[in-house]
Amino acid sequence: MSDRLFIFDTTLRDGEQVPGCQLNTVEKIQVARQLEALGVDIIEAGFPVSSPGDFNSVIEISKAVTWPTICALTRAVQKDIDVAAEALQYAKHKRIHTGIGTSDSHIRYKFNSNREEIIERAVAAVKYAKKYVEDVEFYAEDAGRTENEYLARVVDAVVKAGATVVNIPDTTGYCLPQEFGAKIKYLMEHVDGLSAGKAILSTHCHNDLGMATANTIAGIMNGARQAEVTINGIGERAGNTSLEEVAMILKCHKGIGIDTNINTQKIYPTSRLVSSLMNMPVQPNKAIVGRNAFAHSSGIHQDGVLKNVQTYEIMNPKDVGIDDNAIVLTARSGRAALKHRLNVLGVEIDGERLDATYQEFLKLADKKKEVNDDDILMLAGADRAAAHAVKLDYLQVTTGMGVKSVACIGLDIAGEKFEASASGNGPVDAAIRALKNIIKRQMVLKEFTIQAISKGSDDVGKVHMQVEYDDHLYYGFGANTDIVTASVEAYIDCINKFKK
Amino acid sequence: MSDRLFIFDTTLRDGEQVPGCQLNTVEKIQVARQLEALGVDIIEAGFPVSSPGDFNSVIEISKAVTWPTICALTRAVQKDIDVAAEALQYAKHKRIHTGIGTSDSHIRYKFNSNREEIIERAVAAVKYAKKYVEDVEFYAEDAGRTENEYLARVVDAVVKAGATVVNIPDTTGYCLPQEFGAKIKYLMEHVDGLSAGKAILSTHCHNDLGMATANTIAGIMNGARQAEVTINGIGERAGNTSLEEVAMILKCHKGIGIDTNINTQKIYPTSRLVSSLMNMPVQPNKAIVGRNAFAHSSGIHQDGVLKNVQTYEIMNPKDVGIDDNAIVLTARSGRAALKHRLNVLGVEIDGERLDATYQEFLKLADKKKEVNDDDILMLAGADRAAAHAVKLDYLQVTTGMGVKSVACIGLDIAGEKFEASASGNGPVDAAIRALKNIIKRQMVLKEFTIQAISKGSDDVGKVHMQVEYDDHLYYGFGANTDIVTASVEAYIDCINKFKK
Repeated sequence: MSDRLFIFDTTLRDGEQVPGCQLNTVEKIQVARQLEALGVDIIEAGFPVSSPGDFNSVIEISKAVTWPTICALTRAVQKDIDVAAEALQYAKHKRIHTGIGTSDSHIRYKFNSNREEIIERAVAAVKYAKKYVEDVEFYAEDAGRTENEYLARVVDAVVKAGATVVNIPDTTGYCLPQEFGAKIKYLMEHVDGLSAGKAILSTHCHNDLGMATANTIAGIMNGARQAEVTINGIGERAGNTSLEEVAMILKCHKGIGIDTNINTQKIYPTSRLVSSLMNMPVQPNKAIVGRNAFAHSSGIHQDGVLKNVQTYEIMNPKDVGIDDNAIVLTARSGRAALKHRLNVLGVEIDGERLDATYQEFLKLADKKKEVNDDDILMLAGADRAAAHAVKLDYLQVTTGMGVKSVACIGLDIAGEKFEASASGNGPVDAAIRALKNIIKRQMVLKEFTIQAISKGSDDVGKVHMQVEYDDHLYYGFGANTDIVTASVEAYIDCINKFKK
Repeated sequence: MSDRLFIFDTTLRDGEQVPGCQLNTVEKIQVARQLEALGVDIIEAGFPVSSPGDFNSVIEISKAVTWPTICALTRAVQKDIDVAAEALQYAKHKRIHTGIGTSDSHIRYKFNSNREEIIERAVAAVKYAKKYVEDVEFYAEDAGRTENEYLARVVDAVVKAGATVVNIPDTTGYCLPQEFGAKIKYLMEHVDGLSAGKAILSTHCHNDLGMATANTIAGIMNGARQAEVTINGIGERAGNTSLEEVAMILKCHKGIGIDTNINTQKIYPTSRLVSSLMNMPVQPNKAIVGRNAFAHSSGIHQDGVLKNVQTYEIMNPKDVGIDDNAIVLTARSGRAALKHRLNVLGVEIDGERLDATYQEFLKLADKKKEVNDDDILMLAGADRAAAHAVKLDYLQVTTGMGVKSVACIGLDIAGEKFEASASGNGPVDAAIRALKNIIKRQMVLKEFTIQAISKGSDDVGKVHMQVEYDDHLYYGFGANTDIVTASVEAYIDCINKFKK
């Protein structure tokens, strides 16, 4: 059997189905081009019959990308297939993805039908799609809860009808890896067309029990050669299998012996693009692409990282396109981590002086939760006046509905006072424009996340920012009961990190 | 073997190790009490020697809870164990958790030692801890990458020394379920003390490759009888195994035949408490506890849900303490979902009128992404003037650094105009106080999430709120380039949903 896994990305179809995540056509094209750069094999671009917007998106995505196959979803209904074929007219490589529910509960409650009739409808749909395209994928919806023997009959019938790929979705996210792997194995052993290489099996797993990635890997290890995934594991309910997790498992576990075409260094930028366009946050502890995924803070672990990266780090952040392996100092940080950070900041420290500084550090960390570079330098008796160049003196912002947002800002730059004003599209926009009227550099705000989860309106809000300047990305943080002030503090934090 | 799995929660130790998630002692007690209500068996309360704050927290948590065993972490070092025993003095049930790295890379790079010496140190630590407490757990750090034969020797030695639980951590999150399950199986078969019931094995998995839950379940199916988990899967890097995922898998898959003491209906409130205190967002598509985990939006799926809950829903949201199964209407929503929603809103519709409304709905949904109740009522020719009671007329807010936040708000309530002002701790606080000066009801803001992930400061910010009124929770949403206005809109959206 081939050792090549095809990556079928459904971010723009199953992922985009999430409430609040809908993209317009221009945004979809942007994502599709990024998926092409990432090395995805198949892009599921939409469900053309479902709405005029979906129909147009499939047309425009087909025009915009070259290498990946463009796939359109249909039900096992002639009209759906006609519309899908029309939407795919400009695709260089095209696939129709048709199918029907095969579990007893689907057959009975959804279609009010019976097993034989469902097979007939499945075969008819595949044959009908074959009139339009060579590459036809069939999905057996709710295959996760379809009895294996009947499922094998369905798969056999659609492969004979010409399906090139058969998708075995765990629609409810209910399967456990053993069970799902056994299902794929059963099909591989009982459907002649699969062993003969006439078609491949595909996994399409949902994450309702947190098992999507594990089920997908179990499927692959038992013979599936396509995985249906989304960026950031986005999708309805608890989402779909994460592209990044499958790609990195196969990269880290060479023993599985399966390769993909994914350029893993494009994973992180793709994750950020999708999160930002869909306005769907990725939690800090998300595997591979979360903000903390490569951050080590505990003392024991930091020691390990510094002694030998192999001890605690199985992936290099650079492998997924992340620039730096941030070590954050907290009450858990060890002596070695403190020493390392001081070294990075240009302070050589050892022996008793390190011990004393470490004791002071622990006391501060207990109070302050996160200890920043300035705190550490102060503890070590060093100073960084130069880096402290920009300070927020005062800020006044007026905003609301029916009024234009306007801000006046006062900065202290190395002792000299400056003031400027500006209006903007919102209070943060106005404040940052005012700031830029003082600091006239080519700075681009690349990312802006407000993290305010609270039980009241007067809790502290936290702001994370990334500013690009002189081809480098700088990370800044601010915290304040006023989210506007916190945002400005985060921006200034970035500026103070610029390598002049 | 027993069919009872012990749940060992380490939210307050391994979870709290995350940068920015540190809690003070009062907050830790609040979490510990909630964990007790949830039915956790063991609470790992801290690493007492690591800082004075941790030491005090273990003391105070010991005093605050009654039923769960309180566990304190140590290295295999006498001083650590002395301090841990002191911190545990008030615990009704107490456990010391000591251990050492057992993988070759740990032995070589971290301890500069050899295999025999590590076993000696492990045995000495367990025996020393036994002087203080009966219940001693040993961790073999980086067990995931420790060769099985040597690991069995370590486990055998510490069980003979008196360990009651042996923890097999996949410290780097590198294992695959098959491999991790096989490791547990190997130990169960090769360590006499385990089959004799002198000690049990524990899993402690990390999620770097998205496999923490799958590895934990594989461990349990192969004989482990304790799972170390955290709420929301919080923890360093990509985090630890999620308590909620393990508990719900065992509840949904009765076939595994293992029970826990978890009261699953407390899962969601516990998740919210931890997210809010640690200021760590849970992504909307997180399994079990994400905002979307039980939301169905696609047409096909909504049809399924309405025909038979069993078709697509394997868990009842009520099982995890979530009140309602939100169906959000989007361009993907089917006719049946639209009809259902209109019925809920009191409009009976069918036949041609439904068809026509559905066509209009699709056009609007293509433009609007999320279609709200008012839109639907308008499309169906109904009106809901009464529910539209409160409208935002105007809003002006001034905030900043060095100035007090002040807001003036104008509301239109069923045609009558009102105006009020207030100051507050930040712009949102000021605006909501002003609003409350007009609408004088007993409203409590229970949750407030700003979702702004953007590439510029002028993008749209989204605000989600939950307001408690008259013993009901109301959910509201606002979106605006001005996050302050978006927040006020979300609050008004809640008010307009009140059942008068």
